[in-house]
Amino acid sequence: MFGRVSIIGVGLIGGSLARDLRRLQLCGELVGCGRGLENLRRGVELGVIDRFEQDPARAVAGADLVVLAVPLGAVGPVLASLYPALADGAIVTDVGSAKQSVIAAAKAALGRVPTNLVPGHPIAGTERSGVEAALDGLYQDRRVILTPTEETDPAALARIRAMWSAVGAEVIQMGAAHHDEVLAATSHLPHLLAYTLVDVLGGMEERVEIFRYAAGGFRDFSRIASSDPQMWHDICVANQAALSGVLDGFQQALTRLQRAVAAGEGDYLHQMFTRSKAIRDRYTAMTQSQVTAGAEGEAASDVPGGAPVSPQ
Amino acid sequence: MFGRVSIIGVGLIGGSLARDLRRLQLCGELVGCGRGLENLRRGVELGVIDRFEQDPARAVAGADLVVLAVPLGAVGPVLASLYPALADGAIVTDVGSAKQSVIAAAKAALGRVPTNLVPGHPIAGTERSGVEAALDGLYQDRRVILTPTEETDPAALARIRAMWSAVGAEVIQMGAAHHDEVLAATSHLPHLLAYTLVDVLGGMEERVEIFRYAAGGFRDFSRIASSDPQMWHDICVANQAALSGVLDGFQQALTRLQRAVAAGEGDYLHQMFTRSKAIRDRYTAMTQSQVTAGAEGEAASDVPGGAPVSPQ
Repeated sequence: MFGRVSIIGVGLIGGSLARDLRRLQLCGELVGCGRGLENLRRGVELGVIDRFEQDPARAVAGADLVVLAVPLGAVGPVLASLYPALADGAIVTDVGSAKQSVIAAAKAALGRVPTNLVPGHPIAGTERSGVEAALDGLYQDRRVILTPTEETDPAALARIRAMWSAVGAEVIQMGAAHHDEVLAATSHLPHLLAYTLVDVLGGMEERVEIFRYAAGGFRDFSRIASSDPQMWHDICVANQAALSGVLDGFQQALTRLQRAVAAGEGDYLHQMFTRSKAIRDRYTAMTQSQVTAGAEGEAASDVPGGAPVSPQ
Repeated sequence: MFGRVSIIGVGLIGGSLARDLRRLQLCGELVGCGRGLENLRRGVELGVIDRFEQDPARAVAGADLVVLAVPLGAVGPVLASLYPALADGAIVTDVGSAKQSVIAAAKAALGRVPTNLVPGHPIAGTERSGVEAALDGLYQDRRVILTPTEETDPAALARIRAMWSAVGAEVIQMGAAHHDEVLAATSHLPHLLAYTLVDVLGGMEERVEIFRYAAGGFRDFSRIASSDPQMWHDICVANQAALSGVLDGFQQALTRLQRAVAAGEGDYLHQMFTRSKAIRDRYTAMTQSQVTAGAEGEAASDVPGGAPVSPQ
């Protein structure tokens, strides 16, 4: 499918894609690039990449495909340094969790949105990071959202679609603004709530032992607060507008609930919980019909034998 | 350990305790009681209970032990109806998720806090309910918090401690107010956040397809929004004071975060996420060292092969 592939940022996402491209014989040489020398060396040891460069311009020389898997804050500078060194016909794609910002960063760094840039976002990840976290089959039965611009070359788009399909993902296309709103609601907001909850509980810990009595519900709910702080800092900055919108909506709903709790408004509480349970049960039914038995690429729970047993 | 045991409320919690008392040969006859006739019949079919009564006073006749596993809102009326029918020497315990309200309900219903009432709370449960959800070994390696009052008979307390230990739980004692504050933070608040998030996303669903793109992070985070609305209504009413306190604290922290997102305060975001991740990682390490390999009583995930793979 590809000759040389350059993975800029050899972490969970870039490293897992490299693993699958190799495993499925979809590429020739795999060149890694990143700031952490130790991580790159480990990537070679693990066989995730064949060799590495620390300079993006050197890393992309002669590559058919460049996969940008760096924190969102690094997208602009990295694009600026690698674009002049690209081979003719090379395709560039990224995996950033906010898409309007990637397109804006490309425009700012390069003066235009390049035709060979295919903005993308594989909705797969865990709270773990680094090349050690990379997995075979991470993208099996996962969704990848591509947000091509008006400038995007249809042939480049088709090749990136084919790549993600080949590693088992369901590829979806939508506009970058739509992507950013949906992900703000379903991913970025839950992460901020989990971080905030853990921080609030941490503040109570000295006065009342909190974590000793926290059970499965808290464990599942807060697992995502173990995610990489730099990555989530960058996502908050990159997707500020959409995230602020859903934060406002959440705050209003929580303030309303808070009033209902304080005033003992039983009907409101019962109706809201009932409505929410119905929505969540529909979501469960939907995912159960989607998930194929024996799907690969599942990461381990953070607790041996851990299961979603919730406290009451 | 006990002769006749009456389980008032044969759902996940009461039914699982009945299953273990039987399996471990810790009791004689098991009598169920509840409002749902179908559920009680199913309990007999499943062998969870031997027989049932729909009137609490009839259900507790001749029982050594009465386990009250009804929604918190029903505690007062049920205590009022069953206490006059108790045999001499009978012990009563409950499993309510808020303890001050149970003690207050007993006092209001009976004019005093009875010496044979041992308020308790097994921190084990899932988002499922009803006798069908009852499991063998649910309490294995779980914590049970007992909150005896000044009136509680030490011999009754010792027998309830022994019962929970016998089904594999770690028994902890603390004051009811302490219990209510800890559970408000670690359990009740996360449930309210999950319900609110799902409700907010449900409101966006018509405009932008939300749930189609929601991945593992959302799934884990929101699973508890499938919990029983009546039960959570009752918990909110019963634990109003402590819950309002932690809701206030959470709202303040979220408002601060919201300002940081809106203003792009990168340092604040990075520091908060880093602090929260450190706390969550410590919690992970703590639970990993506590959980024994091969623990029983784990409920199934709501998605076949589901694992905590989060979106980004």
